[in-house]
Amino acid sequence: MPNNDFRHELAQQLRVDSVRASAAGGSGHPTSSMSAADLMAVLLDGYLKLDYANPDNPVNDHLVFSKGHASPLYYAMLKAAGAITDEELLSFRTFGSRLEGHPTPRIPPTDVATGSLGQGLPVGVGLALAGKRLDRLPYRVWVLCGDSEMAEGSMWEAFQHAGWAGLDNLTAIVDVNRLGQTRETMLGWDVDGYAARAEAFGWKAIAIDGHDLDAIDAALAQATSVTDRPTAILARTHKGRGVKAVEDQPGKHGKLLEEPEEAVEELGGARSLAVTVKTPTPGSPHRFATTGGALPRWEIGEEVATRQAYGQALTALGELRGDVVALDGEVSNSTMSELFAKAHPDRYFEMFIAEQQMIAAAVGLQARNWVPFASTFGAFLTRAHDFIRMAAISRADLRLCGSHAGVSIGEDGPSQMALEDIAMFRAVHGSTVLHPSDANQTAALVAEMATLPGISYLRTLRGKTPVRTSPDENIRVGGSRVLRNSDHDDLTIVACGITVGEAEKAAEVLDAEGIRARVIDCYSIKPIDGDTLVQAASQTRAVLTVEDHWPEGGLGDAVLDALAACPDRPPVRKLAVSAMPVSGKPGELLHAAHIDAEAVAEAARQLVKR
Amino acid sequence: MPNNDFRHELAQQLRVDSVRASAAGGSGHPTSSMSAADLMAVLLDGYLKLDYANPDNPVNDHLVFSKGHASPLYYAMLKAAGAITDEELLSFRTFGSRLEGHPTPRIPPTDVATGSLGQGLPVGVGLALAGKRLDRLPYRVWVLCGDSEMAEGSMWEAFQHAGWAGLDNLTAIVDVNRLGQTRETMLGWDVDGYAARAEAFGWKAIAIDGHDLDAIDAALAQATSVTDRPTAILARTHKGRGVKAVEDQPGKHGKLLEEPEEAVEELGGARSLAVTVKTPTPGSPHRFATTGGALPRWEIGEEVATRQAYGQALTALGELRGDVVALDGEVSNSTMSELFAKAHPDRYFEMFIAEQQMIAAAVGLQARNWVPFASTFGAFLTRAHDFIRMAAISRADLRLCGSHAGVSIGEDGPSQMALEDIAMFRAVHGSTVLHPSDANQTAALVAEMATLPGISYLRTLRGKTPVRTSPDENIRVGGSRVLRNSDHDDLTIVACGITVGEAEKAAEVLDAEGIRARVIDCYSIKPIDGDTLVQAASQTRAVLTVEDHWPEGGLGDAVLDALAACPDRPPVRKLAVSAMPVSGKPGELLHAAHIDAEAVAEAARQLVKR
Repeated sequence: MPNNDFRHELAQQLRVDSVRASAAGGSGHPTSSMSAADLMAVLLDGYLKLDYANPDNPVNDHLVFSKGHASPLYYAMLKAAGAITDEELLSFRTFGSRLEGHPTPRIPPTDVATGSLGQGLPVGVGLALAGKRLDRLPYRVWVLCGDSEMAEGSMWEAFQHAGWAGLDNLTAIVDVNRLGQTRETMLGWDVDGYAARAEAFGWKAIAIDGHDLDAIDAALAQATSVTDRPTAILARTHKGRGVKAVEDQPGKHGKLLEEPEEAVEELGGARSLAVTVKTPTPGSPHRFATTGGALPRWEIGEEVATRQAYGQALTALGELRGDVVALDGEVSNSTMSELFAKAHPDRYFEMFIAEQQMIAAAVGLQARNWVPFASTFGAFLTRAHDFIRMAAISRADLRLCGSHAGVSIGEDGPSQMALEDIAMFRAVHGSTVLHPSDANQTAALVAEMATLPGISYLRTLRGKTPVRTSPDENIRVGGSRVLRNSDHDDLTIVACGITVGEAEKAAEVLDAEGIRARVIDCYSIKPIDGDTLVQAASQTRAVLTVEDHWPEGGLGDAVLDALAACPDRPPVRKLAVSAMPVSGKPGELLHAAHIDAEAVAEAARQLVKR
Repeated sequence: MPNNDFRHELAQQLRVDSVRASAAGGSGHPTSSMSAADLMAVLLDGYLKLDYANPDNPVNDHLVFSKGHASPLYYAMLKAAGAITDEELLSFRTFGSRLEGHPTPRIPPTDVATGSLGQGLPVGVGLALAGKRLDRLPYRVWVLCGDSEMAEGSMWEAFQHAGWAGLDNLTAIVDVNRLGQTRETMLGWDVDGYAARAEAFGWKAIAIDGHDLDAIDAALAQATSVTDRPTAILARTHKGRGVKAVEDQPGKHGKLLEEPEEAVEELGGARSLAVTVKTPTPGSPHRFATTGGALPRWEIGEEVATRQAYGQALTALGELRGDVVALDGEVSNSTMSELFAKAHPDRYFEMFIAEQQMIAAAVGLQARNWVPFASTFGAFLTRAHDFIRMAAISRADLRLCGSHAGVSIGEDGPSQMALEDIAMFRAVHGSTVLHPSDANQTAALVAEMATLPGISYLRTLRGKTPVRTSPDENIRVGGSRVLRNSDHDDLTIVACGITVGEAEKAAEVLDAEGIRARVIDCYSIKPIDGDTLVQAASQTRAVLTVEDHWPEGGLGDAVLDALAACPDRPPVRKLAVSAMPVSGKPGELLHAAHIDAEAVAEAARQLVKR
């Protein structure tokens, strides 16, 4: 029999501490915390199995605050569970505190950062997939959602995928307090409306009064007993519950209580209740057997698409390492991750055309120490930009592959061409950006990505390119390849991916005209090989960059940055795609974009002339 | 009585022409076209009211191919409607043709580009909102959707918003052919499952056999008669319908038919049927009255947040121009678009926390010649990156405002800080990127944005900044402001937004030490004031940039690009946010990021020393 008196007192303490922490921090979202306090009190006291003293215990349940702005409540739970002191609680939002405005993994056992709405539930899907299919452990994933964030499409990507995958180890608790930041939500208190949606997406849905402790207990008990589908608890609540001045009042979102001390009194005063949170039954995660083998190798001169090399290298990596897993956005026969899927079906996740859910799932998998590689067309990774941004705040280690780079894809047209992906990924904190020009480079970089921290991005090509790099050459993150050089080079041409071949052809043409060009294959764009570039700039009279990307934020900008500090830097000219491309053959489009050999040669002549 | 014999022949012609166009173009998606041919034949013959000879007729219905890869079918419809010749049809996917791999507005009456799945329906919501609330015309919006794209969360943002708004002028026709690119979709042929989801989101749903001409007719008739909600027709179809070699076969996505001539024979041969498409009843769009007035002005020295200035300027613009409308992602009291909402409620669209739908709606509104300004936190515009990318391909004129830029927001933490937005927007084709440092600059730029083509982005600050710019100064896109200079400046400091004040303070400190700094307020980042920067670089011994943004793709890279061609350019150093920020006071975070006055002064000393 649950002790409702204790749970009520605990809920009141969570409210009090939400008010106190926010007041101490000088800002925060106390009212959004107060609405969910009863829900979290019952979860913490009766259902969560989380060894707070051992955040790395593999059998721990996972609790994700998808409504990250309810961080005061989250931290109040940490205090009640004994994971932080009251003193640390009151450091909320101050410089240096682990208790940031929205939760981040800086405070264990937080798996991921939240605060951009609509991301916690999709990440929860990833954690639940890890539990079911990889770790094969009985942990549960609990996600506290806000009702405002139900407007985000990514929530419905999560509902779809979890319903389809039958993730009965996932429970969404939706705090339906009706009031958004400026107004009532679209559905208001219509918990039955939410329930109908959840059921239509294949979930068990339970609508309750989110302040009725017995109803909450019954709903959580039911959630743990459903065995074929995830459960959504739609809890009707009052924002600011428990303090008359703010309860169910509009205009109180993200605002401190005006009279926090009176509010604490109204809530029954400060308490120091400690909860003994259940700990899970010990267990060990499943490990996949490895079969050994080696990375693929290609002979110089072979014609291979780098996307094909990606697929082959990833498949080989899966044989070498049991922790490597792959995800794809239903284009695996384009990105070539299908090779991994066929070789390692247990470690392949089909995410369908839902790029946000794909990235979120990868974030969830890596939080459980798996090594995910996720792929789709490079253009469509823009769909998940906010998820990639947040993954960096989550300190996630992600490996992403974007295929079909640039105008060189040809007939499909601009909607399918990645032309901003380098810019996007360069501007991700702590990222690595790679764009190999041939198959052997690709294989070496894929292997290195598996051990890289942070978010690494590999850009691959649709069409075949000749293998120029020996499989034994030292290809590495931060490296580059000098294709041709001499002691008397007139200019430096820096290229990557498809434009390496164009630069090489141009150099041959120029050579016949007496213009000597050094050609650098800059396959590592971030970090970039600054030493080689600075040396080339100091030894030649001009630098020409050429890339199949918009002019902003790509290779050219990365080279300019590498040369920024040089006082004696020669003029730099960037060739890039500056007009909106259309459909056509790859060669026609490279020509129209002025990034083919002819354009490179002409730009080189002009640069050397002046 | 509809003539089913004619409609069947028309549908077969659409199939034949899809096969012929794809074969002529050498690639394409004929099987994805063939599944929807019966649906489109009945629509074209009986329901669509579109004056193909006058694409700008304001009363025209709108037809959006959300499954843009079915472009062969779309172009086959244009031929049947007499909008293009058979010769042009066969130019599909060839260089120079208007018939690109996926539809774009290059071929009228196409409103928007599609090809990134899950975007056509959200844009359709925008067109339907324009019809209901702005134009106040009885046109209908028809959107052909694929079943694979139902996995995209953005589709459910559209279902939610359209259901909530009661858009009975919107019909989604979902071509449930069950087969995605590599496998069966999550729901397969479960049209009732889709119908349950649509109904749960407030739509009328009709599940039919998508090859039964009578059922299609009945469903379209019903869609036009429902008066309080949008309608979704869930049509069970066969991919590749009509040609045994490909019909309902896996592995045929995006592939040419191997024997196109035999396929045409099997479909009854080529035809040249012409459809007399209904034309709409003439009508004129509603116009909003203007009240005149002037842009807001602030006195030098006043303290005003640029987000506040945005709200006031936009409100004034709404009084000056009846075509200006505003959208917000449920943070209007943060972005301050709430001022517009209060002054012009008929022209304000609350899009709730669904940034993808917000951008798509704006794209739809501008396709009907309205002038939308859409706002949310700059960080959350990353959520809509793919929609912004596609808007550029749609040749859309959009004005976007992202508030809460950088670490200067303070306590809320990194999830709420825009630190990659400049990089993202610079790499949008044809974009304009603006970051004013005070209120008068903001007002001038907001006014200019209303007349700018393409996608323009205004970045605003959470905190107050002092007004430094006279309301009468010439502030313009492509301009900059030299805050201080002399004939003997030692170095140039380039700043924008919050860092302008830091640069100014640093310059004063440096001045006392005998180091003269020129300070440039680079409020227009793209286009950038290259002349002023080149001149400053040539007149000083070093350039220092300072920005509240990641180091990649922002102000610093834009300045480096502006100076790229200079042979005598001095060293450039970029100050930017390079470590992951945490919570804290704005001043603490600017200091920790090394972008405050102290860091600027120290970097300046080092630069001048060497």
